[in-house]
Amino acid sequence: MNGYSTATYRVFDEQADFEKKALGIAVGLTVGSWTELPETTKRRMEKHLGQVVSIDVHEPDSSGGDERYADITIAYPDINFSRDLPALLVTAFGKLSMDGKIKLLDLQPSGEFLSAFPGPKFGAKGVRALLGVHDRPLVMSIFKSVIGYDLEGLREQFLQQALGGVDLIKDDEILFENPLSPLEKRVNVCQEAAKQARETTGQQLIYFTNLTGPTFKLRDNAKRAIDAGANGLLFNVLAYGFDALAELAADPEIRVPIAAHPAMAGAVYPSPYHGIAAPLLLGKLMRIAGADLSLFPSPYGSVVMPKEENLAVRDSLLNDKLPQAPVFPVPSAGIHPGLVPLILHDFGPEVVVNAGGGVHGHPGGAAAGGQAFRQAVDAVRSGVSLEAYAETHPELRSAIQRWGVRTS
Amino acid sequence: MNGYSTATYRVFDEQADFEKKALGIAVGLTVGSWTELPETTKRRMEKHLGQVVSIDVHEPDSSGGDERYADITIAYPDINFSRDLPALLVTAFGKLSMDGKIKLLDLQPSGEFLSAFPGPKFGAKGVRALLGVHDRPLVMSIFKSVIGYDLEGLREQFLQQALGGVDLIKDDEILFENPLSPLEKRVNVCQEAAKQARETTGQQLIYFTNLTGPTFKLRDNAKRAIDAGANGLLFNVLAYGFDALAELAADPEIRVPIAAHPAMAGAVYPSPYHGIAAPLLLGKLMRIAGADLSLFPSPYGSVVMPKEENLAVRDSLLNDKLPQAPVFPVPSAGIHPGLVPLILHDFGPEVVVNAGGGVHGHPGGAAAGGQAFRQAVDAVRSGVSLEAYAETHPELRSAIQRWGVRTS
Ligand SMILES: [Mg+2]
Ligand SMILES: [Mg+2]
Repeated sequence: MNGYSTATYRVFDEQADFEKKALGIAVGLTVGSWTELPETTKRRMEKHLGQVVSIDVHEPDSSGGDERYADITIAYPDINFSRDLPALLVTAFGKLSMDGKIKLLDLQPSGEFLSAFPGPKFGAKGVRALLGVHDRPLVMSIFKSVIGYDLEGLREQFLQQALGGVDLIKDDEILFENPLSPLEKRVNVCQEAAKQARETTGQQLIYFTNLTGPTFKLRDNAKRAIDAGANGLLFNVLAYGFDALAELAADPEIRVPIAAHPAMAGAVYPSPYHGIAAPLLLGKLMRIAGADLSLFPSPYGSVVMPKEENLAVRDSLLNDKLPQAPVFPVPSAGIHPGLVPLILHDFGPEVVVNAGGGVHGHPGGAAAGGQAFRQAVDAVRSGVSLEAYAETHPELRSAIQRWGVRTS
Repeated sequence: MNGYSTATYRVFDEQADFEKKALGIAVGLTVGSWTELPETTKRRMEKHLGQVVSIDVHEPDSSGGDERYADITIAYPDINFSRDLPALLVTAFGKLSMDGKIKLLDLQPSGEFLSAFPGPKFGAKGVRALLGVHDRPLVMSIFKSVIGYDLEGLREQFLQQALGGVDLIKDDEILFENPLSPLEKRVNVCQEAAKQARETTGQQLIYFTNLTGPTFKLRDNAKRAIDAGANGLLFNVLAYGFDALAELAADPEIRVPIAAHPAMAGAVYPSPYHGIAAPLLLGKLMRIAGADLSLFPSPYGSVVMPKEENLAVRDSLLNDKLPQAPVFPVPSAGIHPGLVPLILHDFGPEVVVNAGGGVHGHPGGAAAGGQAFRQAVDAVRSGVSLEAYAETHPELRSAIQRWGVRTS
């Protein structure tokens, strides 16, 4: 439907007339009332009226083991809202979010709406271009600890990670502006460490500095970080709203990739009955808003997101259904080198292998940890088993001794 | 604990060792690791380490009818995060929000943290002062429909509402910048209508104009609205994050009250297993961030929030436990004049009686609808039953005939 953006909801109700419910949404979230309007008003209002696109009722089976719900898709006229994500979200899931057991499964904004969003400035492809790495998954590492560390402590951690040959290093999302490691000085010492490591590794490296502070200062803080030499930003999108990301990503002066952190996402996606589905929250909306990388819980750690949901997030980031450039999926938590074949099997080649404990917990230290990851990636690319590759690669061997190999 | 801000979580787990879990949170969300640190590092890190304050385990009864959970309170050192709400929320419920079945029940920021937040510029008291109304609950009304209406249509709706003697009129939260009723012109015609009504009613009136648009333009848009004559702003806080509200509320040029709309809150508060509890989300955080009024689902409509949760939201807005001024609670949805005694019984005198259908659906029109609400408020204040008062007040009589009186 041209000129309409659609939303799909899963509505749980033991006895509701879902036709009536759908109509109530289509009318209630647009023109407010319909049947009782005079004909002349109807003619004037018709272009503002929401439309019921589909209603897919799931009746519980006779065992009573599951629940009655319907997947309802409503089309909202673009004419009703402005070209920003808060407007779309408040229209489609503002008041409605509070209306019983209802989860927002998907949004399909119109082409016209989407055309207002330049999306990722780099995306997966652009990040590869910055690094000059086109033929393998990227490896990212996370500081072991950041709170309470001074500049020298962070520098040393950074250097060890960089020496391991990782492509990307990110701040912890809980590192805020603080006297021990203030933004510009932190960027400085870490970029110096990157330069030092480059003399050994010969590699490019992106450091994602955590962008924090008051909302209306985010743009200035981003530019301060960039002026100090930052070549990437980490951003807690959900604490500030998708529009802040969209505006940062669209700013021509913010010419570095942005990694979206999912902090607080667990308040929104996990319930089957409420909230916003993960593929939309951490996939499609991050991409429309312009994240270059999107982090989300991996299916391998102790904190799991079910694998099918994981892969749906990945698909939302990479598929060819949006005009915005594909975004690097970064499944995170519980990653060690012995998981690399499985990650590449599950996620394909366009993925960032991201680890914290799996780097720093390596018996040989963080540099060996990064090397073990790079070796694991090389093993998969060469079609060699990790065990075989480990015979000639001691860092990978230690990693496997420590964590094992997991193939499913 | 001086210098610490605490968070209380409800963690569901059939078999977890909750002591271990609590320690894991206290360490994991602060210094990252502890027991294995060298003593000298421990001494340096101690002031950054989170502390377990309490663990209250609820074991299921033998019937197996309920679930095993623990309420865990953790104290986070203020030194770890900056003085903004995204920093506090990401620290206390960033990564942790994704860690299984866990709900954030409460936050108790330290006095020092709270001192960074001026809170509501007006609050309940200040809004009363603006209106010159000190001896009764306020009455708010909502436009019947706004989408698809031109300025003349909105003006007429506004005038009828204002003629009914309501104190506050708010835009619909789904009214965005649009060619039919652009911000400044809308403010203009509505304030003209307010002036016209004042000649009849003799009353002050606050019109809450919906503040929308890109995040980094919110401040400018607020000032544009105020320059055009707006004397109140409605704001979809959760679409932009609490910090945007905090910065708007703290801006000395934004010298009008702000009503916080709960749009999208249903994605966050309703699940018992995930998200953020309503009294924190729509109560305490709105107050710290500086809302002057906070809207939330009433316990009376078809869309209900359980009454005890409602009253907990109200308490968070009004109690004397915060340095920030008390905020007007606005329980919304399903309100008609026959509910006024019950609302005042449940919520007490410091409440805004807010209605849409209960104003516009009055058989005598919106002006009569507003009058019926004012009469219902007067009846309660005089200690007279609605039925008795209605004998001499035809607008109230019609309302009662239409909707009845509900006393529990
Ligand atoms: Mg982290
Ligand atoms: Mg509304």
